[in-house]
Amino acid sequence: MNPPSRTAQPLKIAIAGLGTIGAGVLKLLAANGERIARRCGRALVVTAVSARTRGRDRGIGLGSAAWHDDPAAMAAAADAEVVVELIGGADGVAKQVCEAAIAAGRHVVTANKALLAKHGTTLAKEAEARGVSLAYEASVAGGIPVIKAIREGLAANRITRVYGILNGTCNYILTAMRKTGKPFAEVLAEAQKLGYAEADPSFDVDGIDAAHKLAILAGVAFGTEIDFAGIHIEGIRNVAATDIEYARELGFRIKLLGLARMTEAGLEQRVHPCMVPVETPIAHVEDVYNAVVVEGDFVGNTVFEGRGAGAGPTASAVVADLMDLARGRRAMTFAVPATELARAPAAPMSRHRGAYYVRLMVVDRPGVIADVTAALRDEQVSLESMLQRGRRPDEMVPVVLTTHETEEAAMNRVLARISALAAVLEPAHVIRIEKF
Amino acid sequence: MNPPSRTAQPLKIAIAGLGTIGAGVLKLLAANGERIARRCGRALVVTAVSARTRGRDRGIGLGSAAWHDDPAAMAAAADAEVVVELIGGADGVAKQVCEAAIAAGRHVVTANKALLAKHGTTLAKEAEARGVSLAYEASVAGGIPVIKAIREGLAANRITRVYGILNGTCNYILTAMRKTGKPFAEVLAEAQKLGYAEADPSFDVDGIDAAHKLAILAGVAFGTEIDFAGIHIEGIRNVAATDIEYARELGFRIKLLGLARMTEAGLEQRVHPCMVPVETPIAHVEDVYNAVVVEGDFVGNTVFEGRGAGAGPTASAVVADLMDLARGRRAMTFAVPATELARAPAAPMSRHRGAYYVRLMVVDRPGVIADVTAALRDEQVSLESMLQRGRRPDEMVPVVLTTHETEEAAMNRVLARISALAAVLEPAHVIRIEKF
Repeated sequence: MNPPSRTAQPLKIAIAGLGTIGAGVLKLLAANGERIARRCGRALVVTAVSARTRGRDRGIGLGSAAWHDDPAAMAAAADAEVVVELIGGADGVAKQVCEAAIAAGRHVVTANKALLAKHGTTLAKEAEARGVSLAYEASVAGGIPVIKAIREGLAANRITRVYGILNGTCNYILTAMRKTGKPFAEVLAEAQKLGYAEADPSFDVDGIDAAHKLAILAGVAFGTEIDFAGIHIEGIRNVAATDIEYARELGFRIKLLGLARMTEAGLEQRVHPCMVPVETPIAHVEDVYNAVVVEGDFVGNTVFEGRGAGAGPTASAVVADLMDLARGRRAMTFAVPATELARAPAAPMSRHRGAYYVRLMVVDRPGVIADVTAALRDEQVSLESMLQRGRRPDEMVPVVLTTHETEEAAMNRVLARISALAAVLEPAHVIRIEKF
Repeated sequence: MNPPSRTAQPLKIAIAGLGTIGAGVLKLLAANGERIARRCGRALVVTAVSARTRGRDRGIGLGSAAWHDDPAAMAAAADAEVVVELIGGADGVAKQVCEAAIAAGRHVVTANKALLAKHGTTLAKEAEARGVSLAYEASVAGGIPVIKAIREGLAANRITRVYGILNGTCNYILTAMRKTGKPFAEVLAEAQKLGYAEADPSFDVDGIDAAHKLAILAGVAFGTEIDFAGIHIEGIRNVAATDIEYARELGFRIKLLGLARMTEAGLEQRVHPCMVPVETPIAHVEDVYNAVVVEGDFVGNTVFEGRGAGAGPTASAVVADLMDLARGRRAMTFAVPATELARAPAAPMSRHRGAYYVRLMVVDRPGVIADVTAALRDEQVSLESMLQRGRRPDEMVPVVLTTHETEEAAMNRVLARISALAAVLEPAHVIRIEKF
């Protein structure tokens, strides 16, 4: 093709939000601007910025960009074709900025997973009706270009499943628990000291952040309306050091996964700790790394791995979106026109089929195991293995069992019966097994 | 953006070559055609085909596509906007088809790595001068969209290194050797029986195929002219079962890697067996799977993994290229205009710096180790570890040593001195160590 003329107009960009990510975008454009212009055939120029504090040292100058106190007013009126929203939050100013930009006929690039998880369908419809792009590569898995991979690189496939390690904080904590044997609370405190976890860690460790990303992945993979409310979410607070030790013994590692699949019962979306076989690639994704696995009917399994957060990787994804816009490379927000996204019912977790790891704390006395196995038998749940280490008559000991694949409703009936046994002293510790 | 009108004209496609891949493309279009049309806003229609034998059963019908006996004539004259070249081979008919299509102003989609490795720069210049696309996602790593990732998804980065497992046959053989302990020749024979290796396996096991792919990756990653001739190539024939056993003991796995890096001495491109630490992600890419690691200055390490060959994955990549064309999403062949690709000198292997594994077969007698270590000392090559298992006075025993990082020229001088020792009975078995 004819390379675009070097005298092409620069792409004018307004940035709302100059925290770590916003400053990262400015640093990237300063470092690689010439290379980027060569690849796009035109320069990327930041013409306007808006943030809370004007004078703050961000480690990078603002150049000739016009300062705006009001980001939404900037989005509506700035001399820019694209507005980059890096404020964050599912509502409030971030949403106003995106809506104002779209209403004014400007493209939007955002890293805001919470916003898209809550308002993605609506914003996509608004953008497509107005003829502008809503680009969001940075919102899922940091610098890994997985949105582009699903929407373009693997677009010829019917996607059968998408899943992955979508939260770096949880993966860091689970990796550190496995390596040190320390309990969750202690490792969390260390992660907070190191800056890998927030002072209020609940967004990460309770699975909310991973669920935001899963909602977006599911939308683009299956062509369905974004349905955050339909996600079954469990975090990692209840993963005990002893479960990690048993996982090792059973040939598994524990990972917080987000998984989405289209089933006969509807769209299955779930975020929870999983036991994954140690020989699968995803078991070896460690520390703050993220990974997304996409299964397609022709391509088979593909794995995309990299840093899921941080200024550099996120800026890489934001600027990639800007480069696509500069080159005129457009795509529909969620792969099909937003007005045609399917509204799939949420598949109930009771219908989920899978294998289970169950750790019971029982009084070590004759007949307990018989009662437990009777409950399994009566619900036709088939036992795969059972571990009881040592004997301490009349004291509390762990009994660990794993099941073959069964329906979650049956498993719940088993667990209700087991919990009612006098010899069972704590609620059962249950972790789903994913064998892929 | 406004979704394209549903009444848009279909994208007309001519396919040259109806072997496994060509039939795979037809099967994919038959299976997912409706979904693809929805995503593109227009249908993909095969209007012309050409292959050696007309009547052959390919497991899929040719529909209403016009049959052409001469693929180059079809490329020049068919009623099609795109010609898909799936004939293979670095020259001959495949090249004629691509040139004829470009000359006639048609886009080209190809899976032909040999052709691109040899003529990529020239073909890119011809295509860009004529204003058509030359798309080749399927030529590297099968269905993994790594060309798109480097050229678009990671385009904001200065790529510092790209490397990977680029040949599924070699990875299958090395995996099987590790799992069974069997020697190369025996595993190769089994792979041939299973269809994982060709009757003449030299393209795969001698590293040529991996080098073709590396040449393409380096071009798009570094914006350099494709330089297949500048690649240092070693295959896997000399990897012995005993080296795999020592690798395990030292905490490594042996993989055939292709690696490219821009250095002060020029473009370093090499394909050879490597010892990689068992804890790196690439060590766990097994069997016929491929993986490509891309290192960028902002994004850090990203890993792309999947099936590197086969009808399904390759068809997935071919049709993704077609969908980009159908949507009008264009990109420059190797990320920058082909006329501006840099001509980088090939960095000589003698300047390569790295660590080394060396297995010597020596007569077990006093003084041998002193002579070996003196050679290392004199060339200032620093020993990291040395293993000698058991003692069999005056018989042949293996001595294994690993070095710290050194220059290859110094290592070669050491090896020349060691080989000249009377007690050293075979040429040294050397495998480079890559720690990343």
